[in-house]
Amino acid sequence: MSTLRIRNATIVTQDDARRILQGDVFVEDGRITHVGAIAGRKEADRTIDGTGQVVLPGLVNLHTHLPMTLFRGYGDDLHLEEWLATRIWPAEGKLDAAAMKAGTDLGLLELIASGTTSFLDMYWLEEEVLAPACRSAGVRAWLGEGMVDVGQTEAGQPNKKLAAIERFVKSAKAAKDPLITPCPAPHGTYTCHDATYAESARISHEHGVPLHTHCSETRTEVYDVQARTGRRPVAQLAHTGALGKHSVLAHAGWVTKEETRSIGQAGASVAHCPVSNLKLATGGVAPVPELHEAGVKVGLGTDGAASNNTLDLWETMKFAALVQKNHRWDATVLPAQRVLDMATRDGADALHRPDLGRIAVGATADLVMVDFRRPHLVPRYDAVSHLVYAAGGRDVSTTIVGGKVLMAEGRVETLDAGKVMAAAQREADRIVPKATRADS
Amino acid sequence: MSTLRIRNATIVTQDDARRILQGDVFVEDGRITHVGAIAGRKEADRTIDGTGQVVLPGLVNLHTHLPMTLFRGYGDDLHLEEWLATRIWPAEGKLDAAAMKAGTDLGLLELIASGTTSFLDMYWLEEEVLAPACRSAGVRAWLGEGMVDVGQTEAGQPNKKLAAIERFVKSAKAAKDPLITPCPAPHGTYTCHDATYAESARISHEHGVPLHTHCSETRTEVYDVQARTGRRPVAQLAHTGALGKHSVLAHAGWVTKEETRSIGQAGASVAHCPVSNLKLATGGVAPVPELHEAGVKVGLGTDGAASNNTLDLWETMKFAALVQKNHRWDATVLPAQRVLDMATRDGADALHRPDLGRIAVGATADLVMVDFRRPHLVPRYDAVSHLVYAAGGRDVSTTIVGGKVLMAEGRVETLDAGKVMAAAQREADRIVPKATRADS
Repeated sequence: MSTLRIRNATIVTQDDARRILQGDVFVEDGRITHVGAIAGRKEADRTIDGTGQVVLPGLVNLHTHLPMTLFRGYGDDLHLEEWLATRIWPAEGKLDAAAMKAGTDLGLLELIASGTTSFLDMYWLEEEVLAPACRSAGVRAWLGEGMVDVGQTEAGQPNKKLAAIERFVKSAKAAKDPLITPCPAPHGTYTCHDATYAESARISHEHGVPLHTHCSETRTEVYDVQARTGRRPVAQLAHTGALGKHSVLAHAGWVTKEETRSIGQAGASVAHCPVSNLKLATGGVAPVPELHEAGVKVGLGTDGAASNNTLDLWETMKFAALVQKNHRWDATVLPAQRVLDMATRDGADALHRPDLGRIAVGATADLVMVDFRRPHLVPRYDAVSHLVYAAGGRDVSTTIVGGKVLMAEGRVETLDAGKVMAAAQREADRIVPKATRADS
Repeated sequence: MSTLRIRNATIVTQDDARRILQGDVFVEDGRITHVGAIAGRKEADRTIDGTGQVVLPGLVNLHTHLPMTLFRGYGDDLHLEEWLATRIWPAEGKLDAAAMKAGTDLGLLELIASGTTSFLDMYWLEEEVLAPACRSAGVRAWLGEGMVDVGQTEAGQPNKKLAAIERFVKSAKAAKDPLITPCPAPHGTYTCHDATYAESARISHEHGVPLHTHCSETRTEVYDVQARTGRRPVAQLAHTGALGKHSVLAHAGWVTKEETRSIGQAGASVAHCPVSNLKLATGGVAPVPELHEAGVKVGLGTDGAASNNTLDLWETMKFAALVQKNHRWDATVLPAQRVLDMATRDGADALHRPDLGRIAVGATADLVMVDFRRPHLVPRYDAVSHLVYAAGGRDVSTTIVGGKVLMAEGRVETLDAGKVMAAAQREADRIVPKATRADS
């Protein structure tokens, strides 16, 4: 049995009572077995000192495109269409497995370094490139293999990738892979046929894995879908059977109050990505209070680093809170505790893994520690306030997934940071044309 | 003669051509004497290795209330009026010199740690508490002694503090204080009489020091001033003579296009504080593009840490860019370079110190270094993109003011960080009632 002890920390449990305790967290074989005061002396294989630090559940990034970390800062401040047509698509055209592996490793390094322990992805080569990289780095991943039908799949036919996706889902289940959950990721209702959504929904339902899709990110998308189908995107998802309790809708920036209720009634979830939405100027502000009112689990996503430009969920928490307050002219909307819930419990619940979003006896030990002994985290009146409004990814000292230490004292243990960063720069230089880059 | 050399860095000069160079920066007696390749061997008293790092002009925080750093995270998510009435004002009532000193030192520590070299303040005891603290920490400060007339000064009379403010201005000038510029800071047109603004304007004009004031932060303020005077706040400032080329208007969230032109014609400047505006849900979004169009120098401010909750101008840069894009539904608005200008050159220009906002021969050596050898700053296509969209205060390794190293390799040299943080917590615990605090 392997054991781990975090000593003398402030424990932001995120349990149902949102208790904040002072003491230890004890982990045995990846599960939390004690929280708070531990009676008697209990030695562990590894002990991490939590003095001056806060331990909380690891953050859940509910929408990203991890290999795109390679495109961080490539083509900012452009109209969405121009950015895609002149930068992202040409670069993605040259994106081979080696470049994707470099981008994925860089993304994993950043996730670990900034305290994200789980993420829901949408890209391609998820089985070939992402799964082994995640296993090796020790990060928990829901790997959505992306599908686009437009110009590729005959109408009425489900996307050809679906058979391989289901095989991958089954093999990960059969292997009882503790870290990897494959899932179908139809790109959007404006790019995928009904048959692809229907078959994705069957796989999602049958195997209990997410159906990961973009939904109502831009007005154009909403208008286009409505013009083609007579239905807005949420209704179109429902029409194909793809609005289910395992569905995760990324963005939902342009949804009506009626649509928030449909999402809630279906038990589907939303991945709110405020930083990307603002940076791409999609204009819509996801109606988070109405989604909450409708009982929707709303997690937080960074989206890809290409449109963010980080994978830092702490920053996303602050943006989420502040954008809602500003949008509603009401400073009481989305208070700090509610936002912290979104980044932890709610994201975990959206993935049907409540054991990941709380620190409690019996829960899985996905944990992060934030070092509060820093000028911008002093004085302390309210730990939750600092976590949401003052902390950043760089304040994370320790990241633990399933009881395994991925980073301690700021040092990543499962990846060679120097090598990963060098490989990413090398691959970026290889595949991104110099002429389209702003400077050296 | 004291000399300093930064070796082998990427130099984001922020000069008129916005050149980005690779090489060294050489400083003699606080002034930059070489930029880029240095011919021959040139030894310096101190050499800092810039390998993998970016050096740029130190950031300018154009609006803050530094002692309020003591109230970071105290009373979030409240309506402005409730926050002031139930938290801030009662706490400020107990704020003696010892507590203010603790808050100021904490603020200075955070400024240095996050790469801000100059700031424009508004609070009280600026001469007694802030000036010595800034000199000791080595941070460049414009110290606006705040004035509120309502309920304190007879209408028609200038605020009684003005005589002392002018004495402080004169004594700092006589002493040729290299770091401290005192200035009058009438709180706002809804709280100060015309006579106070007129006399503040005279002092500002006669001595060439800022007139630092809040202006059009909230709709209520605009309505109230208009109801009382028949003029909106900008016109009211102009009416009293207080809209001049040394005036710095904090917020300007609720100004019309006509008002942006008035500000421009007067040569006055604006301190844009998007994080605080969003957090307090003031609703207004400063019309930065129109202000730019009108020729207004728009710098960036964090506002006090109590409403932010940090003094991190990197975060403010990202918010500034993204909020404008979202507000205009246009991703091309306020591109990265323009925002970096606001945080450096434009802020320095607003304070009539262009020598602080550029790296060029003859300029004053207020410099910061950002360590790019970090996962979230890789790969590098465009250094300016990373500075605005990916970097944070915690990535700053080195802070230099007037050629003096305040921090190197992440270690602050002019303040004892541990002692400053301990004192801040102690004073916070002394003056802030336990009953009004969210947790331990």
